[in-house]
Amino acid sequence: MKFVTFESEGKQNIGILSKEGVVKMSDIFKALGKDEYPKDMNGFIGMCNESLLADIIHADSLELTQISMDDVRICAPIPYPRRNVICIGKNYSDHVKEMEGSPTAIGSERPESPIYFTKSAWPAIGDGDAICSHEDLTSQLDYEVELAVIIGKGGRDIPSEKAFEHIFGYTIVNDVSARDLQSSRKQWFKGKSLDTFTPMGPCILHRDSVPFPPDLSIESHVNGERRQSSRTANMIFGIPEIISDISKGFTLIEGDIICTGTPSGVGAGFKPQRFLKKGDIVRIDIEGIGTLTNHVK
Amino acid sequence: MKFVTFESEGKQNIGILSKEGVVKMSDIFKALGKDEYPKDMNGFIGMCNESLLADIIHADSLELTQISMDDVRICAPIPYPRRNVICIGKNYSDHVKEMEGSPTAIGSERPESPIYFTKSAWPAIGDGDAICSHEDLTSQLDYEVELAVIIGKGGRDIPSEKAFEHIFGYTIVNDVSARDLQSSRKQWFKGKSLDTFTPMGPCILHRDSVPFPPDLSIESHVNGERRQSSRTANMIFGIPEIISDISKGFTLIEGDIICTGTPSGVGAGFKPQRFLKKGDIVRIDIEGIGTLTNHVK
Repeated sequence: MKFVTFESEGKQNIGILSKEGVVKMSDIFKALGKDEYPKDMNGFIGMCNESLLADIIHADSLELTQISMDDVRICAPIPYPRRNVICIGKNYSDHVKEMEGSPTAIGSERPESPIYFTKSAWPAIGDGDAICSHEDLTSQLDYEVELAVIIGKGGRDIPSEKAFEHIFGYTIVNDVSARDLQSSRKQWFKGKSLDTFTPMGPCILHRDSVPFPPDLSIESHVNGERRQSSRTANMIFGIPEIISDISKGFTLIEGDIICTGTPSGVGAGFKPQRFLKKGDIVRIDIEGIGTLTNHVK
Repeated sequence: MKFVTFESEGKQNIGILSKEGVVKMSDIFKALGKDEYPKDMNGFIGMCNESLLADIIHADSLELTQISMDDVRICAPIPYPRRNVICIGKNYSDHVKEMEGSPTAIGSERPESPIYFTKSAWPAIGDGDAICSHEDLTSQLDYEVELAVIIGKGGRDIPSEKAFEHIFGYTIVNDVSARDLQSSRKQWFKGKSLDTFTPMGPCILHRDSVPFPPDLSIESHVNGERRQSSRTANMIFGIPEIISDISKGFTLIEGDIICTGTPSGVGAGFKPQRFLKKGDIVRIDIEGIGTLTNHVK
């Protein structure tokens, strides 16, 4: 099942992707005889459980209005996260290798434990939205395709074998980065958090729609040229390990977004480096979730 | 004027500190003939303007119920920030010097530009609450007294000479840190964000209650022994510069919390190092704002 946040007739809604378009969550809740329905994706994630999901699967097969994709604008599934997006640096060996010697490299070896930083997404932008080039602040604008895990059930000190129970689903994040800011500021927050630096979407794929842990092809293209290509099984720290590690002494909450790192092929990894410029079109894809396309403005 | 978040009779409220206790914001709004009042501090900050403040100053002098301090529990003024707390590392020269050669040092020189990282405060704890020692995760628990700026009016690319207009007020944050995690994870987020690592309060001092930029004494004590003692005028990057710099290409929002760094005297700066242990009492003070005391559990 794929959940989306979308705009139609000037209003933002959440819904489910169907064969012919989008079904509004509020229509599904009405069909289920429920008076109250979630206002946004965080609200839905907070109330979602097995029984509600089973009801929704059933309701989806009823004859509910399907809004054509031509009549909606897809937004980031969680445009305003409850707190910053948690990101993991250096989580694919080939990416660690390509960044060797760069100012943002942290050693040339596989990290001993996950490296976390955060990204402010306020709002996260959606498919089709523009990435601002921030030319006055950076001349090293870069892309990073990442599988993002959406937490469904909060918790602390989660054992890796229970990680799956805490996941709601998966989406795609482009961890857009200003490499020069990222390195000159030592800590990565600012270089990762300029406005429009968190394209997210196009949907959240429910955890039950893919075997766990997911082994999916993950790719990015710039102006049609393939730059990154790997599989999510190639992560150094896998999803169970990440959820277990980050939650040690740190309570995860429903709706938390955890980006799991990027494979090799980012602009900074080429010799000479190939950064983004105005007019470029960045397309990132993860198998089963979809495609997220943004242009640089 | 000092704004607080507090609990009384099992409910969380916001209010104003008065001579004899706390006046509920909802009582003030009722006295002003307003039907709707803010639910929490973020809501209040979002609606606060000169005219409302003038009304409140007037209402405060009316004979409203003052709840005795004995009957309230003071909470962090913003227990659930709208996004992560933004922090600045290495912003007092004496602290840069004392950290020289430590694993979390970033050079021994004055940084060329502010170093930003974030801290998750979910929730931020209040005066009197316990800091969890997380003994299974760290043996280098440390304290850092910091002046925190609360943003009142959002904005991007704010010139330093307009910074004041965007400030709502000031509070105190203890930037509790697990030094070993902070250094082993390279990026500082995890070592700064374990549960209970963001004591905040006891109040927000309104910007108009102190000359700008504020030059206030800033101190910390562990078990009664003074460890840190400086003045906020000693910051390397002052508040106008920080607001101008962080907002470049990055939209600040109302309720954002920006911690402005800590002076020398943290546990990691002593030889031998003096980290916190169970039972320790950490008291941090900033002139005009108040005192924030927390014990280690």
